[in-house]
Amino acid sequence: MSEDILMTEAGVMELAQRFLTGQGLAAPHAAAMARALTRAQRDGGLSHGLQRLPGTRDTIGHPEFNKAARPKVEQLTPAVVQVDADYGFSIYGTELGLPALRRSAGQLGIAFMAVRNGFHSTALWPVVEDLAEAGLVGLSMNPTHDWVAPAGGSRPVFGTNPIAFAWPRPDQKPYVFDFATTAASRADIAMHRQAGQQVPPGWGLDPEGQATTDPAAILAGAMLPFGAHKGSAIATMIELMAGPMIGDRTSHSSARFDAGHQAAPCHGELIIALNPGLLGGAGDVENAERMLNAISGQGARLPGSRRHALRARHDREGIPVRKALYERILQLMADAPG
Amino acid sequence: MSEDILMTEAGVMELAQRFLTGQGLAAPHAAAMARALTRAQRDGGLSHGLQRLPGTRDTIGHPEFNKAARPKVEQLTPAVVQVDADYGFSIYGTELGLPALRRSAGQLGIAFMAVRNGFHSTALWPVVEDLAEAGLVGLSMNPTHDWVAPAGGSRPVFGTNPIAFAWPRPDQKPYVFDFATTAASRADIAMHRQAGQQVPPGWGLDPEGQATTDPAAILAGAMLPFGAHKGSAIATMIELMAGPMIGDRTSHSSARFDAGHQAAPCHGELIIALNPGLLGGAGDVENAERMLNAISGQGARLPGSRRHALRARHDREGIPVRKALYERILQLMADAPG
Repeated sequence: MSEDILMTEAGVMELAQRFLTGQGLAAPHAAAMARALTRAQRDGGLSHGLQRLPGTRDTIGHPEFNKAARPKVEQLTPAVVQVDADYGFSIYGTELGLPALRRSAGQLGIAFMAVRNGFHSTALWPVVEDLAEAGLVGLSMNPTHDWVAPAGGSRPVFGTNPIAFAWPRPDQKPYVFDFATTAASRADIAMHRQAGQQVPPGWGLDPEGQATTDPAAILAGAMLPFGAHKGSAIATMIELMAGPMIGDRTSHSSARFDAGHQAAPCHGELIIALNPGLLGGAGDVENAERMLNAISGQGARLPGSRRHALRARHDREGIPVRKALYERILQLMADAPG
Repeated sequence: MSEDILMTEAGVMELAQRFLTGQGLAAPHAAAMARALTRAQRDGGLSHGLQRLPGTRDTIGHPEFNKAARPKVEQLTPAVVQVDADYGFSIYGTELGLPALRRSAGQLGIAFMAVRNGFHSTALWPVVEDLAEAGLVGLSMNPTHDWVAPAGGSRPVFGTNPIAFAWPRPDQKPYVFDFATTAASRADIAMHRQAGQQVPPGWGLDPEGQATTDPAAILAGAMLPFGAHKGSAIATMIELMAGPMIGDRTSHSSARFDAGHQAAPCHGELIIALNPGLLGGAGDVENAERMLNAISGQGARLPGSRRHALRARHDREGIPVRKALYERILQLMADAPG
């Protein structure tokens, strides 16, 4: 572990914002991206925190990326919101569409938002967690790039296709999960390669489609879904619903669109918001709490709980940022032209 | 394998209907149940086919079961349909609500149906497959009884919580999956016990919460979710959405409601229907087909495809029914009072 420095939330936010505007990214986009990275860093979600900042240069440098994108929010039906992110980062478009999504779900009980044509590099959980903080149930998913072979197959078809879900709880943080539908994350496999370690069986295939524990072979070959054919089916559903169903790219076409620029994947994102108050049960708070407490009461960790505990700690003590990363970010800013 | 007899679809349907009405089940309920069992038998889904018929006696014998239930369909909002199954089998209530669900999804792009207070013993795939045959995307889920411990835990909390999804395809059967969110089905574990075989590791825990490969210990203890903590999270989502969110039982309260009668679980069911024509992409048929063909083209089986192949074969050759089961059903009918 490298040494950490402690920063305030405002300090992390300001650093990220300055880095992004320094690359010519329009102010509202820089603010939305900085907010998302800061929230991840604050919750100890390092892979989606400031760590993503250096890579934004590759995304912003993609020939199709629009630094001054003007997302367009359209209400396609009373239950369906569509945001065209206009080839900027998708998070700003998502933020612009959320009020309409919340309003529609509030009125109808269920509503749907598709965010299209956005470069996506932020975690899904902040958006669904916010929906749950507002009393709604949130479900979100998206494709990525085709790195993942179907169960029983040998060649990549799916992305790492994350799915996130949040459920409001009284007097405490929502129940939230957010995970890739792969046996392990791409970052985890890359870390094993860097450390010269083999990965456990079941994580992936080599370029010939054979099972392997060599992380380099998996990164050149194919990752595998979590949960064998059941996880593979969930990944297929995400690919279809957050891709063709909303008229946006599959993980395969998103990877082709990238054309080797190493940008964040450009694709669609789907968010469904549900209002328990209109679905007949008002969320039956007591019964839901009994179920969730039966999980945590036997020592099985609720997803999200570690993140919420770290947030509370970092709010007291400051947000840790790896010193090497901090210095790299400053250096990149000093080196930047203009 | 015991010997099979071959029956026509009409013959299977008539047998099931006669068995059910013979127990005093009102005609429309008997017809709906018989249709569902016949569809499963026709597709080779034996566990949800005629095999379920003998057990319907336990369900119909539950003191809360309503043989002449009159399900009530209510449109709670333009996007939300609620069916109260009135303590009959849920499938008839579901059938009554589907036209409203299809209409709402057709108009708004997304719609939601909750079926409450139904005894549930039919597979989920027939309903979502029908939605997909009508050009919609279908997603369905329900709790069952609390047989499944959370990943990292030791005591049962979840049901086997199935999830089903269907996607329309041009000129061929829809893409459909329908699976329990457990490492293995309860029927599979029971079959191992009957055959005196150990089960593979990872299927369950004994009553002390310790990992075991003894099927009897798992049936007395706890099953485990598929896909470790990720499958556990999906099971939690299903428990919350198809339980408290719609004001119906969790798997825990459903098991208590059964009170040892061995009836089919009485709980809620959730169906979401989406209309790709109103979601911005019209289902982008070409891109979706390319993705699905990339799966099947490398020899990875698409879920549902085996079932559809068996259907085609059984439509030509007749529907196989195990002779021992057929004779047992006839015997039970002969023995029945009245």
